[in-house]
Amino acid sequence: MEVETAKGVRDFGPDEKILRNHIVKTITGVFELYGFSPLETPIIERMETLTAKFAAGEGSDAMNEIFRFSDQGQRNLGLRFDLTVPLARYIAMNPNIKMPFKRYELGRVYRDGPIKLGRYREFWQCDADIVGCKSVKAELELILMTVDIFKKLDIDAYINVNSRKLLFSILELFDLDPEKKTKAIIAIDKINKLDMAAVEKELYELGMSKNDVKKLTDIIDTRGNNLEILDKIEKIIKTDEGKEGIKELKELFSLIKNNNHIKLNLALARGLGYYTGIVFEAFLKDSKIKSSIVGGGRYDNLIGLYLGTKKEYPAVGISFGLEPIAEYFKLKKEKLDQTVTQIFVIPISQFDKALEITQKLRESGISTEIDILGKGLSKNLDYVNTKGIPFAVIIGDEEIKLNKVKLKDMTSGKEELLTVNQVCEKF
Amino acid sequence: MEVETAKGVRDFGPDEKILRNHIVKTITGVFELYGFSPLETPIIERMETLTAKFAAGEGSDAMNEIFRFSDQGQRNLGLRFDLTVPLARYIAMNPNIKMPFKRYELGRVYRDGPIKLGRYREFWQCDADIVGCKSVKAELELILMTVDIFKKLDIDAYINVNSRKLLFSILELFDLDPEKKTKAIIAIDKINKLDMAAVEKELYELGMSKNDVKKLTDIIDTRGNNLEILDKIEKIIKTDEGKEGIKELKELFSLIKNNNHIKLNLALARGLGYYTGIVFEAFLKDSKIKSSIVGGGRYDNLIGLYLGTKKEYPAVGISFGLEPIAEYFKLKKEKLDQTVTQIFVIPISQFDKALEITQKLRESGISTEIDILGKGLSKNLDYVNTKGIPFAVIIGDEEIKLNKVKLKDMTSGKEELLTVNQVCEKF
Repeated sequence: MEVETAKGVRDFGPDEKILRNHIVKTITGVFELYGFSPLETPIIERMETLTAKFAAGEGSDAMNEIFRFSDQGQRNLGLRFDLTVPLARYIAMNPNIKMPFKRYELGRVYRDGPIKLGRYREFWQCDADIVGCKSVKAELELILMTVDIFKKLDIDAYINVNSRKLLFSILELFDLDPEKKTKAIIAIDKINKLDMAAVEKELYELGMSKNDVKKLTDIIDTRGNNLEILDKIEKIIKTDEGKEGIKELKELFSLIKNNNHIKLNLALARGLGYYTGIVFEAFLKDSKIKSSIVGGGRYDNLIGLYLGTKKEYPAVGISFGLEPIAEYFKLKKEKLDQTVTQIFVIPISQFDKALEITQKLRESGISTEIDILGKGLSKNLDYVNTKGIPFAVIIGDEEIKLNKVKLKDMTSGKEELLTVNQVCEKF
Repeated sequence: MEVETAKGVRDFGPDEKILRNHIVKTITGVFELYGFSPLETPIIERMETLTAKFAAGEGSDAMNEIFRFSDQGQRNLGLRFDLTVPLARYIAMNPNIKMPFKRYELGRVYRDGPIKLGRYREFWQCDADIVGCKSVKAELELILMTVDIFKKLDIDAYINVNSRKLLFSILELFDLDPEKKTKAIIAIDKINKLDMAAVEKELYELGMSKNDVKKLTDIIDTRGNNLEILDKIEKIIKTDEGKEGIKELKELFSLIKNNNHIKLNLALARGLGYYTGIVFEAFLKDSKIKSSIVGGGRYDNLIGLYLGTKKEYPAVGISFGLEPIAEYFKLKKEKLDQTVTQIFVIPISQFDKALEITQKLRESGISTEIDILGKGLSKNLDYVNTKGIPFAVIIGDEEIKLNKVKLKDMTSGKEELLTVNQVCEKF
């Protein structure tokens, strides 16, 4: 029998899982500081929920890559591909919930797609959403929270912000049919990833004239600080939607005040998804990892569509990608921690006495292992070293007589004779 | 379109998820105190891994209730039904890992079975296992850890302990063919759930004589403290395996010392699973919840079978059921917390000033929400009340002039005028 994982899914050994737990704990901690409460939705959803026309962008990868199966009762089921669709379904099932509803959910999502570098079939998303708030103060909260998370993780990153409303109204300045408009938006969205020539080529292929392409790329490339750019664009935008987009962005940027990590980027679209207003995306500075590590935006129609009512459920959400963030730390750190253990207790003779001491260390909050294999001192110290456990406590007859233990600092090699209480105080 | 979850899976709203997070955090915290490091395995496994003849007890429910599907490449996949099979697969794929390997994993598992009260198709298990230790010191660690978790959770529970080796050798005293012996074990295992008469009836149906049934139930019912019972049983047990089982139990109980929450129970078998030695199971005292909340034991053969080698991989594991433990707290608590938020900030006039203060509260570690809907004071206080948020901070022009805020205790109704620093110190 071949022993292996399924294709595109991974085990995370203790070293990687300790790192991932650290990231998850930090993100969760800040989500809760901002008053987001946890929600857990199932990994299995009805196919009807997942494939609702409005669940993701029509024809999007996510929709085409659902793991599908049925249960004993021949019901059509699938694995969720994101955490937003289950949220929309949850709100639709609980329409009387108090607004604003601020929830976070961190968990695994699934896409049965081609396996490429950095793309997996099982991966984690870390989402926070606010339902029931039309004001850009909701976007503001999510963006401030993102800045705080980067600070707590000690990550150097920047946030691009744009408005779908503004982007659409810029496209309105050109004579393009709706389908080509959509394609032009997708092309422009790639400016941050491809070089400009490649994007221009895509625009020519849509039948845009050289003049129009230049005009469009010039608009996208407007220079200045966030409010200056908006002032310039305001002069050429004609539609009410576009003006609304500018007003919202101005309100947002004036509340954010000076923060040069948050930048208006008129090319940003965030694909074909369900976004309706402000969108944002964050990238690492000076890193090999070029993909976005955070994405989000406003999606005012999705939940209402699930409910099948005209009642509005404005919503705005943000999603942190655990995979690229974990990858960033793996590139940055020389060596990952392999264990949570802080002290390894080595009983030289009396196991029961050593166990008593072990229990005292644990009671005082120190992660402690005790040798249960009955190995000798040197073999135990080898194990402690290989595992990267920072301290060993050695307990022989001599130490028991003195009512003390020998604490060995594995980094310096220094040994001290201490009472158990003294050991506890040191940690 | 019908909006609902799939059958047998559930949403956990903020109230239930806050409770579940508390349980998970407590269990994880103690696992780490005992030097268990985290491991994450995928929810999707290859069917070959899940249905390996030895993965669960042959013909067990778990094996028959696998959610099955295939990926784009027509590979046969399924959702994991426990966390032990993925661990065995992980060890088999990493045979050079340092022993003892102590890992924990908390996560969801899946069973496409009939839906009954308290049985779900998606549920959480919280497992800790020690691989590579033949000594009962491994069982000892798991049992001591369980006692600590009950203490930290403030749960009143007891632990039943037995040995498969002992149970089999008790059955050896009777003239039963192997198949009937297995059935007799399953019948005896029910003594804790059914009444004795029902169990006796099952034993008669296996062809056992009245005398034999009496003899068997008398043995199972031997009275005394743990070591006294073992002394009595030792006199009648004939097989080497049985003597080994008694020796192991004696070592275990002498190391545990006096703990009247831990009791030898000669009827305990823990089904038909892969256990080979000591088994244990914990139940709530004085609770409506009669099912076990913790189960575990030694399984020395499973990992070696995956590896296909004769090399021994002794292992012992424990699994906490999140579902019955959460149910216990739900029955016990009058009302669950609905939110993580500690302070709700109500800006009467200047939103930006109130936001500054909100950020200061968050910086000092207080979970804080701010009104982003621009509702009036009384509507905001209504929201704070309904959500059960314990404090409101009200910030009007008067407060801003004084450089203070009004802190309202929502329980007592008491209001205080304080500086932001004073508020931070209070929390």
